[in-house]
Amino acid sequence: MEFQQRSVFCGTLRKLDVGSEVTLNGWVQKRRDLGGVIFVDLRDRTGLVQVVFNPEINAEAHAIGDKVRTEYVISVKGKVVERDAETINPNIPTGEIEVQVSEIEIINQAKTPPFFIEDDIDVDEQVRLKYRYLDLRRPEMYRTMELRHKVTKLFRDYLDSRGFLEIETPMLTKSTPEGARDYLVPSRVNPGEFFALPQSPQIFKQLLMVAGYERYFQIVRCFRDEDLRADRQPEFTQVDIETSFLNMEDLLAMMEEMMAKVCKEVLNVTVETPFRRLTYAEAMERYGSDKPDLRFGMELVNIGDIAENCGFQVFSSVMKKGGQVKGINVKGCAYYSRKDVDELMKFAGRYGAKGLAWMAFKDDEIKGPIAKFFTEEEISTIKDRMQVENNDLLLFVADKPKVVADSLGALRLKFGKELGLIDESKFAFAWVVDFPLLEWDEDAKRYVALHHPFTRPRPEDVHLFDTNPGQIRAQAYDMVLNGFEIGGGSMRIYKRDVQEKMFKALGFSQEEAQEKFGFLLDAFEYGTPPHGGIAFGLDRIVMILAGRSSLRDTIAFPKTASARDIMTDAPSPVDNKQLEELSVRVVMPKKTDDK
Amino acid sequence: MEFQQRSVFCGTLRKLDVGSEVTLNGWVQKRRDLGGVIFVDLRDRTGLVQVVFNPEINAEAHAIGDKVRTEYVISVKGKVVERDAETINPNIPTGEIEVQVSEIEIINQAKTPPFFIEDDIDVDEQVRLKYRYLDLRRPEMYRTMELRHKVTKLFRDYLDSRGFLEIETPMLTKSTPEGARDYLVPSRVNPGEFFALPQSPQIFKQLLMVAGYERYFQIVRCFRDEDLRADRQPEFTQVDIETSFLNMEDLLAMMEEMMAKVCKEVLNVTVETPFRRLTYAEAMERYGSDKPDLRFGMELVNIGDIAENCGFQVFSSVMKKGGQVKGINVKGCAYYSRKDVDELMKFAGRYGAKGLAWMAFKDDEIKGPIAKFFTEEEISTIKDRMQVENNDLLLFVADKPKVVADSLGALRLKFGKELGLIDESKFAFAWVVDFPLLEWDEDAKRYVALHHPFTRPRPEDVHLFDTNPGQIRAQAYDMVLNGFEIGGGSMRIYKRDVQEKMFKALGFSQEEAQEKFGFLLDAFEYGTPPHGGIAFGLDRIVMILAGRSSLRDTIAFPKTASARDIMTDAPSPVDNKQLEELSVRVVMPKKTDDK
Repeated sequence: MEFQQRSVFCGTLRKLDVGSEVTLNGWVQKRRDLGGVIFVDLRDRTGLVQVVFNPEINAEAHAIGDKVRTEYVISVKGKVVERDAETINPNIPTGEIEVQVSEIEIINQAKTPPFFIEDDIDVDEQVRLKYRYLDLRRPEMYRTMELRHKVTKLFRDYLDSRGFLEIETPMLTKSTPEGARDYLVPSRVNPGEFFALPQSPQIFKQLLMVAGYERYFQIVRCFRDEDLRADRQPEFTQVDIETSFLNMEDLLAMMEEMMAKVCKEVLNVTVETPFRRLTYAEAMERYGSDKPDLRFGMELVNIGDIAENCGFQVFSSVMKKGGQVKGINVKGCAYYSRKDVDELMKFAGRYGAKGLAWMAFKDDEIKGPIAKFFTEEEISTIKDRMQVENNDLLLFVADKPKVVADSLGALRLKFGKELGLIDESKFAFAWVVDFPLLEWDEDAKRYVALHHPFTRPRPEDVHLFDTNPGQIRAQAYDMVLNGFEIGGGSMRIYKRDVQEKMFKALGFSQEEAQEKFGFLLDAFEYGTPPHGGIAFGLDRIVMILAGRSSLRDTIAFPKTASARDIMTDAPSPVDNKQLEELSVRVVMPKKTDDK
Repeated sequence: MEFQQRSVFCGTLRKLDVGSEVTLNGWVQKRRDLGGVIFVDLRDRTGLVQVVFNPEINAEAHAIGDKVRTEYVISVKGKVVERDAETINPNIPTGEIEVQVSEIEIINQAKTPPFFIEDDIDVDEQVRLKYRYLDLRRPEMYRTMELRHKVTKLFRDYLDSRGFLEIETPMLTKSTPEGARDYLVPSRVNPGEFFALPQSPQIFKQLLMVAGYERYFQIVRCFRDEDLRADRQPEFTQVDIETSFLNMEDLLAMMEEMMAKVCKEVLNVTVETPFRRLTYAEAMERYGSDKPDLRFGMELVNIGDIAENCGFQVFSSVMKKGGQVKGINVKGCAYYSRKDVDELMKFAGRYGAKGLAWMAFKDDEIKGPIAKFFTEEEISTIKDRMQVENNDLLLFVADKPKVVADSLGALRLKFGKELGLIDESKFAFAWVVDFPLLEWDEDAKRYVALHHPFTRPRPEDVHLFDTNPGQIRAQAYDMVLNGFEIGGGSMRIYKRDVQEKMFKALGFSQEEAQEKFGFLLDAFEYGTPPHGGIAFGLDRIVMILAGRSSLRDTIAFPKTASARDIMTDAPSPVDNKQLEELSVRVVMPKKTDDK
């Protein structure tokens, strides 16, 4: 052997092990010399244990121990002994014992790392990403990766137990005309042609249903070449699911059971099923969001009926133009200063609100410039409806429904966090259902599919294709957790006549539909079962369950916001020879003057 | 509901179910009208059942049943009844019963499929691939996908039970200068730069070891843009494994246990462990292959010592030039005609053999033009060594060792198959070990790494770096099953001085090494544990376990030999706008005249 292999893991030693001889392998977390005795915190993936090099016990081992430094890889052999009462460390599970070293071997040396290998470090993320292999040594990163492994396994085990087959679909696929921007892969064998990396296996999973596979799933990498917002990744992982001959209720119940199981096994949290269910309309109305955080209240309250005829012209004129007036009650915040409210106004402005009206109820006084426009009766109705108590602050937005929802929804979340209204121990799951099937695209002057062109309408709404397509509700559903959309899906159209109505509503001619979705439509001709499915965002689920705040912390080797891997320095220029073989050439974009 | 959901699966009905009312959903496999009664074989993923539309039992259902055609999707409700004795079908599990239909609903119609949905069809593979969603309906395809799911799950369960974490590594990675050709992905955000799709997660798994993860695995898609041989896929799936602080013996034992478990659970086949182990030298010597099929004998026998001084000048001169003379005993084939042997000669010629010498032992006669060049004593030694019995045919090749191995190895496999020597029920696992660390590249006039530049040499061979690098044996191993290499790996170098010797042997300067492997070498500076791993080819393992003959049959949506998906028609041309955004342009290769 080239080194002495461990007999036991560092983090597992306990008082019960006192007296036994052990061999440990690991990294030097810390090394201290106290009066000639060397104390080393030795780390492996299970945790830390203190190992001691005492020259009086073994001079040779002490001499070598003297040479070790932070992050050296060592193998030590020694006896587990109890610590003196005063040196017991109650903060670590191995804190009652230590290992008296009789043999040590330096397996490998190490340069001093650029940051400490410990939790809650305050280090620039760029540095963490550049030295990701060191960042990943930190216990909180290990715990997150371990949790990700467990969550993934639980999804697989559950789906397997319910008769789902995991089936792999291609990564080198065809570029599709709709949806987000594709990542392209030039084909060498077919010059001038390109593969696309999949944005999702949507088409393949529907084909598997046509092929009679009944229950498919796949935990699969997907790709979107979008302009990255703060917390998006160009490659992300999806738990992709599709079923045949099931109705929506059966599918949703199964998905609830799966999520409840994951929460129970991973966090020992009991999640009640069935999940709360909100229609899209209700979610927007009450929370100003289609992914409401249901861990706290502060619902949006509609006072349109009062605003319509009130003396405050801003409100009444918005109502006349078909807008909305809604408010939230910020409990106990009547003490907010003018300046505070101005800040809130600015915040709401980012969501399109042109103003933020307010009323504060302090003892018997009503503060706020708009109060005078309302009759006593109107005030009384508002107080009633918004459950006003002493010291409450009411905030109102009057605008188009979207602006009202966005701005008040955002304010609600802001207060939820800042006022500590959110019970962080809660896992508030819900379904948002009855999404509109179609959305009017003002630019294209046509309807576009909110979900995708194969989403099944509710049967009782199909007749609206001829009269009011915008009112059709889809058999589509999002799973929401703590204010995040963690999954979404739909039942799919399987009837030819419904599909034709859908294409017509989208403004596609037969030829266009064939061109865009050709082989899928062909496949649908050969006996398509009723089917539907869902896809979950694994990275995001892990982020929430692990209590992390960034998707990057849930991915072993993530990309930066500018879609780079700064550890390996990818992407990077390649040899011209490589490009020549692929029949492509780089044509650098012209620099524009205004840059 | 939009259709009547099944109460039970078609293929599961048995005599015990007689008398119960069932609802079935599925596809019409076959429809026959026998004297006004309609018999339909209804199919779902569990199998077939016969459903009967009898006008005397239900006229309405019969009228609708009359309209169904092959591959229609239907829902039927009815009573399970016993079949008449004379109509029992012992060939299918549901053959003792049938379902008397009282209600039927046509869920979806179907065009007539281009081929029958049944096993062992004789259809051009191009057609099967174009209509893959129909091909996948065939029971043997379903069974293969189900087996693939099970095998994959068993790998995961085993590795999880042994403390491995599945960790996802990036698909958008950096192009590496060594190895096969990369698939490239242009970066839009970083014009002129490219990602590469991973040929394997090799670098990332080694980084995870540096990061202290101890036991990593991933079932992961890999990509190689190679000129496709008959049975290669541009994207393939690997069971990728890496461990730290384990020695080679521990790792191999664990992998044996894993494979034995898979065979037991999936096929109920008991595989003995430990696996047989052959050195690379032994495998080449005895089987002419580094992935020998050990399900039968017919080993290569070296008669170099006899050939050296024999009267047959072709043999003796090859020996003088440092070549080899070896033979195989084709038992009982002395009756082969001149023409038969000529065919074999041609076959051997494809592997570089310039000739094929033969001797046939028929009763007391020795046939074959070379017999006369050997003394009686020489013949007797040959007979002895090659265990010749009456009617045996000996075939000899005299050439460079590589040609001898390739041609006799190929002949051995050919006879194994054609003479039925292979026990198809056997799963002959073995390890091939002690591969050479380095291979002399005649073109580059330097050594190249046989496995990769981080493969650890056997400690007792390290001193050969200075004297005879070609003789160094690597701590590398391949797992072999029935003549296929199903996995391979190595212990990795973790000591700086050994790594430097390795780079020197490969002819890399410090600068070159840094340029090629920069960040990995940097990472190795921060405390690298002893580590090593292995990767298995999942597609190939599934192919062998499922008894299929092509990798394409193990992949739901494979590519053709020219790297195309003919169902979706990928790759395909894309919009110029897309290319412009990526800062690339297509430059079609010039047509050469000799095409």
